Amino acid sequence: MELGPPGGSGPAEPGPRLRGLRGADAAASASSLSRFGAEAGCRASAVAAVLPAGGSGERMGVPTPKQFCPILERPLISYTLQALERVSWIKDIIVAVTRENMETMKGIIQRYQHKRISLVEAGVTRHRSIFNGLKALAEDQPNCRLSKPEVVIIHDAVRPFVEEDVLLKVVTAAQEHGASGAIRPLVSTVISPSADSCLDHSLERARYRASEMPQAFLFDVIYDAYQQCSDYDLEFGTECLHLALKYSHIKAKLVEGSPDLWKVTYKRDLYAAESIIKERISQKVCVVMDTKEDEEHVGHCLEEMLKTELNHVKVTSGQDLQQIILEQCYNFVCVNVMTSDFEETQRLLNMVEESNLSILYPVVVISVHFLDYESVPLGQKMEKVMQIREFAKEAKKRNILLSGLLIYFPQIFFSLL
Amino acid sequence: MELGPPGGSGPAEPGPRLRGLRGADAAASASSLSRFGAEAGCRASAVAAVLPAGGSGERMGVPTPKQFCPILERPLISYTLQALERVSWIKDIIVAVTRENMETMKGIIQRYQHKRISLVEAGVTRHRSIFNGLKALAEDQPNCRLSKPEVVIIHDAVRPFVEEDVLLKVVTAAQEHGASGAIRPLVSTVISPSADSCLDHSLERARYRASEMPQAFLFDVIYDAYQQCSDYDLEFGTECLHLALKYSHIKAKLVEGSPDLWKVTYKRDLYAAESIIKERISQKVCVVMDTKEDEEHVGHCLEEMLKTELNHVKVTSGQDLQQIILEQCYNFVCVNVMTSDFEETQRLLNMVEESNLSILYPVVVISVHFLDYESVPLGQKMEKVMQIREFAKEAKKRNILLSGLLIYFPQIFFSLL
Repeated sequence: MELGPPGGSGPAEPGPRLRGLRGADAAASASSLSRFGAEAGCRASAVAAVLPAGGSGERMGVPTPKQFCPILERPLISYTLQALERVSWIKDIIVAVTRENMETMKGIIQRYQHKRISLVEAGVTRHRSIFNGLKALAEDQPNCRLSKPEVVIIHDAVRPFVEEDVLLKVVTAAQEHGASGAIRPLVSTVISPSADSCLDHSLERARYRASEMPQAFLFDVIYDAYQQCSDYDLEFGTECLHLALKYSHIKAKLVEGSPDLWKVTYKRDLYAAESIIKERISQKVCVVMDTKEDEEHVGHCLEEMLKTELNHVKVTSGQDLQQIILEQCYNFVCVNVMTSDFEETQRLLNMVEESNLSILYPVVVISVHFLDYESVPLGQKMEKVMQIREFAKEAKKRNILLSGLLIYFPQIFFSLL
Repeated sequence: MELGPPGGSGPAEPGPRLRGLRGADAAASASSLSRFGAEAGCRASAVAAVLPAGGSGERMGVPTPKQFCPILERPLISYTLQALERVSWIKDIIVAVTRENMETMKGIIQRYQHKRISLVEAGVTRHRSIFNGLKALAEDQPNCRLSKPEVVIIHDAVRPFVEEDVLLKVVTAAQEHGASGAIRPLVSTVISPSADSCLDHSLERARYRASEMPQAFLFDVIYDAYQQCSDYDLEFGTECLHLALKYSHIKAKLVEGSPDLWKVTYKRDLYAAESIIKERISQKVCVVMDTKEDEEHVGHCLEEMLKTELNHVKVTSGQDLQQIILEQCYNFVCVNVMTSDFEETQRLLNMVEESNLSILYPVVVISVHFLDYESVPLGQKMEKVMQIREFAKEAKKRNILLSGLLIYFPQIFFSLL
C-alpha cells in the first residue's frame, strides 16, 4: 500500500510526480531542515552521506521500525550514526525520517550527542527518501543550507557495523568510476519462480552477487539519475546502482565488502547485533588498585586470571585512568584493599561521568571490598558496605552499572550486593 | 581445491566419475553404515531425510566446521537432528559426515541420545555428500540396509529451526509434483558483475526468490537425477531443485518458508541461534513451594511478578512435577519456607535427572531459603545453607545449573551463593 504525504495539498507539478517534497511542500520541508553542527566551508572533495531511515520494519515482526529498535537500550540507528561520525572526512550526514518519527530522531541525536546530522522528511519509498536527502544537498533547491558534496555515500540506517575501510573504498572508486557499491557472495541460490509457483530456472550462484551498502556516487551522477527517473522506479525500485546505470549510464565499480555489512532485517539480526556489540565492549577491562603495592601483587594475579578470558586487561593504581577512559574502556574493577570506604570507587565514577563515556554504552564498575570473617562483626560492617546500593541506584541513572563484591575471608564467601 | 577420497585405490568405473563411494570403496562404505535404532518395515509412503554435513565452515571464520560449533555447549547439528526427530513420520535420517568427523558425530548421537540416525561418509562436495546419502537408501546398492523411501527430504545440518509444518508442506508437494523446496524473499538485490568487477545488470528483486531448505523429492526423481548428472554438476553445483529440473524434467513446487529457515553461515548467526534458543527455553518457569499453603500465598505473589516477564509461569507444591518436567520446562524456583534443608530441592534434582531433560539443554534450578536476620546467628546458619555449593558442583556435571538464593530478613538482603 502506498501513502501520500501528510497534508499533501500542494499544486500539481510538471515532470516526474515526486511525492516526498513537492511544490509548496518542498520549500516548507527544506526550510524545516534541522541541522546539528555541520561544519561549513568544506566544498572541495567534500563527502556527505545520506541515510534513508523511513522504513516500517515489517519483516522484523515488531511494531517499532527496525532502525529504532533498541540494542542494549540504545536505538539501532544511533550505532550506525556513530559508525559514520567516526569518519572525520564525512562532512554531513543526512537522515531521512518520516514526519511521525522526526521528534524521536531529534531526541536520539540529542541524547547520544550525534554531530554533523541533518534531518529531512522521508518519502513513502526508499528511493523517494534518498531523493529527499540528495535534494537537501543540491544547490538548485530553495533554502538549501548544506553545501553540495563531490561524492555522496548512501548507506542504510540498519547496517551499524560499517567500517571506515569500506567507506573509503567506495568513495575512492566513485571518484574514479562515478559510482560504486559493496557486494557480498550469495548465501542461497537464487531462483526464478513461474506464475504457478513452480521453479522456472535457478541462477548459477557463482555468477551473481548480493548488492549491499554502502554505495557511493559522484553527486551529480546520482542526483541527475534521480531527477530523470520514472515514477515506477521511485515506487518499486530499491537499487541506486541500477538508477546510475539506467539514467546516467555509469557502470558502478563493485567492491567486496566484509560480512559485517549485513543488514538488520529480522529479529534474529537484532540478537546477533547485540551479541556482537557486547563482545566488542566486554573484551577490555581495567583493574584499579587503591595502592601501588597492591598493583604489583593482587593486581598482577587478577591480571593473569582475567587474561585467560579477555583480550585487553590493564592494571593501574589510578594515575593514567583519564587516558584509559579516553581509549573507550567500558569495564572497571576497583579493588579496595586499604579501606572499606568508597573513595576510590567514587573518584572513578566521577571520571567516567565527566568523560561522557556512558552516553553510548553502559559502563560496568565492580567495587571490591574485603571483610575479615573472624575479627569484624558482620552486621555492622556489612551495613556500611551496603551503602554501595545507594551509589548504584544513582549511577544507574547515568548508565553506569555499579556492583559491589564483598570478599569475606578467611572462609572465602562471595556476596554480590 | 578438491580432495580425493582417503585411500582411493578402487578400480576405474564406467559412467560418471563418482568420488564419494566408488568401486570397492562403495561396498566398504555402505557396509560401514552405522545405524542407531532405525525402525524397520515402513516401506509404504515412507519418508527419509538426508543431511549433508561434510562442510568445512570457511565462512564462519572459526576452525570448527559450523555444524559442530557449540550453541549453549551443544553442537549445532544436534539441534537440527532434534528438530527432525520430533517428526514421527520421518523414518530414517541419513547424515553425511567426513571420515575425520565420523567419531565426533557418533559421540554426538550417543551423548544427546538421537534416534533413527544412519551415518554415511561425506563426499568432497555438497552434491556428492547428498548422493552418498541417497545411495544408502537405494535398493540397487550392495549391502544397503535401509529401505527405500517414497519421498526423501534434503535438509541442511545448519538450519536448526525447521518446523514440522514446512516439512509436511514440502513432502506433500513432492508427492504431487515430484519435487518441492522452501523459498524466501530476497533480502538484498542480486546483481551480475562484469569481468572487470563492474555492474553488468541488476535483477528485479521482486521476480526472484532465495532457494532455502528443506526440499523434498520423490526418491526415484532425485536419485535418477544424481545418477545421470555430470561431474561438473557434482563438483560445482549446490542446488538439488536444479538437478531435478535438468535431468528428471521436474519443475519443483515452491513453498514459502518462514524466516526461521535461515542457514547458520556466519559467526553472527551462531549468536542469533543462541539467543533464539535461550529465549525459547527461558520463557517457561515452574515455582515449587514446600507447602500447599505457601503455594496459595507466597507462590501467588511470585507468579504475578514473574508473569510480567515470562510467558509461562506454573506454581505447584509438587504433586504434578513429573508432568511439568515431561512438558519440557527448563527453569525451576524451589521455595523452602518451612525448613532450611534441601529435601525439596534434592527431590526436584532427582526427578530432573531421571527425566533426561538436561541432556538437551541446561536446566536451571534456584533453591530459595529464608534466614531471620535478628534471631539466627548468621555464621552457623549460613554454613548449613552453603552446603548447596557442593550440590551445585555435582549437579553441574549433569547439566543442571543450581543456585541458592538466601533471603535474609527483616533487612532484605539477597545473597547469591
